[in-house]
Amino acid sequence: MSYQIAPLSRLIEQLERLPGIGHKSAQRLAFHLLNMPEKAAEDFIGALKDAREKLQECTVCCNLADGELCPVCRAGNRDTGLICVVEDPQDVMALERTREYTGTYHVLHGTISPMDGVGPEQLRIKQLLTRVAESDVREIIMATNPTVEGEATAMYLSKLLKPFGVPVTRLAYGIPVGGDLEYADEVTLRRSLEGRSRIE
Amino acid sequence: MSYQIAPLSRLIEQLERLPGIGHKSAQRLAFHLLNMPEKAAEDFIGALKDAREKLQECTVCCNLADGELCPVCRAGNRDTGLICVVEDPQDVMALERTREYTGTYHVLHGTISPMDGVGPEQLRIKQLLTRVAESDVREIIMATNPTVEGEATAMYLSKLLKPFGVPVTRLAYGIPVGGDLEYADEVTLRRSLEGRSRIE
Repeated sequence: MSYQIAPLSRLIEQLERLPGIGHKSAQRLAFHLLNMPEKAAEDFIGALKDAREKLQECTVCCNLADGELCPVCRAGNRDTGLICVVEDPQDVMALERTREYTGTYHVLHGTISPMDGVGPEQLRIKQLLTRVAESDVREIIMATNPTVEGEATAMYLSKLLKPFGVPVTRLAYGIPVGGDLEYADEVTLRRSLEGRSRIE
Repeated sequence: MSYQIAPLSRLIEQLERLPGIGHKSAQRLAFHLLNMPEKAAEDFIGALKDAREKLQECTVCCNLADGELCPVCRAGNRDTGLICVVEDPQDVMALERTREYTGTYHVLHGTISPMDGVGPEQLRIKQLLTRVAESDVREIIMATNPTVEGEATAMYLSKLLKPFGVPVTRLAYGIPVGGDLEYADEVTLRRSLEGRSRIE
């Protein structure tokens, strides 16, 4: 007979659906969640429900927010003349970690991907155009991922933005810091050659 | 400024506490959980709550069960004269996967570990002794893990079980199938030599 305890199997099954969680990890997680003290389990479920209920999109940049504005748009000390266009809220987190960028963002929530049935109308493109039309924007930095979809989306947007006369730029491609030339793929190497700069 | 959206940070923090989940994975999981359709999120939370509420210990073997008896004890076609003593319900799952063992189990829910403040009274030892005293047991197989605590617990139990006159055995130690002699540690090799058997 096969060993099946319905509520346990269901929990393991649910955990297996999460990204990067295989069967063994799902099992280990399930037993961990089962053995948690009641209070810890309540906190866990509470945090999940809370995040799903309270998080909304920033009315300016479409980033995740727990109010009308996201922390970046709310901050007041960011350069609103600079908009960095990214695919997802995760990318905002990554760029914020550099502590280098002082402008604002615009989160598309995806890329144009006809294969997955995602067209421009599913992205927050209208909001970006309205924003550029209504405020004083000096530069728009395309920071979509260097994938086919990311590139295509950046190209599409730069065409749409042309009539506004705002310069549109692109993040630099190249060898990752700490990377090894030997292991870099040819496309990255080619881009890295094209983008070479003079050492002063 | 640091990028902090309270409900999101709390969710990531909760996920980071899970075993084997680092910060990056927690972040990825959080966004996955946030982007889930409402129905899927309800199923996820439901499975977790359900498992925590419905799972109890089998009244015979202390394995996890969704009723009075676990699937093994409920099956009716298992050899109740054979008891395999394991540390955790996970071990039952692992042994069941072999499709080899037809006896029953007894789940201790841990090992004796004075360092972690776990004494014999926290384990399901009393239940094991009662079971051996009250039913017709032919053999008890110790299948605790080959760790210091697992060994000590097996030794302790075999002493406690002596008065019942039931033979107590131990799982074989040795080189794992597919393993390499070259990489086996000395203790395993020594045990594997001691346990050698004649090729017929």
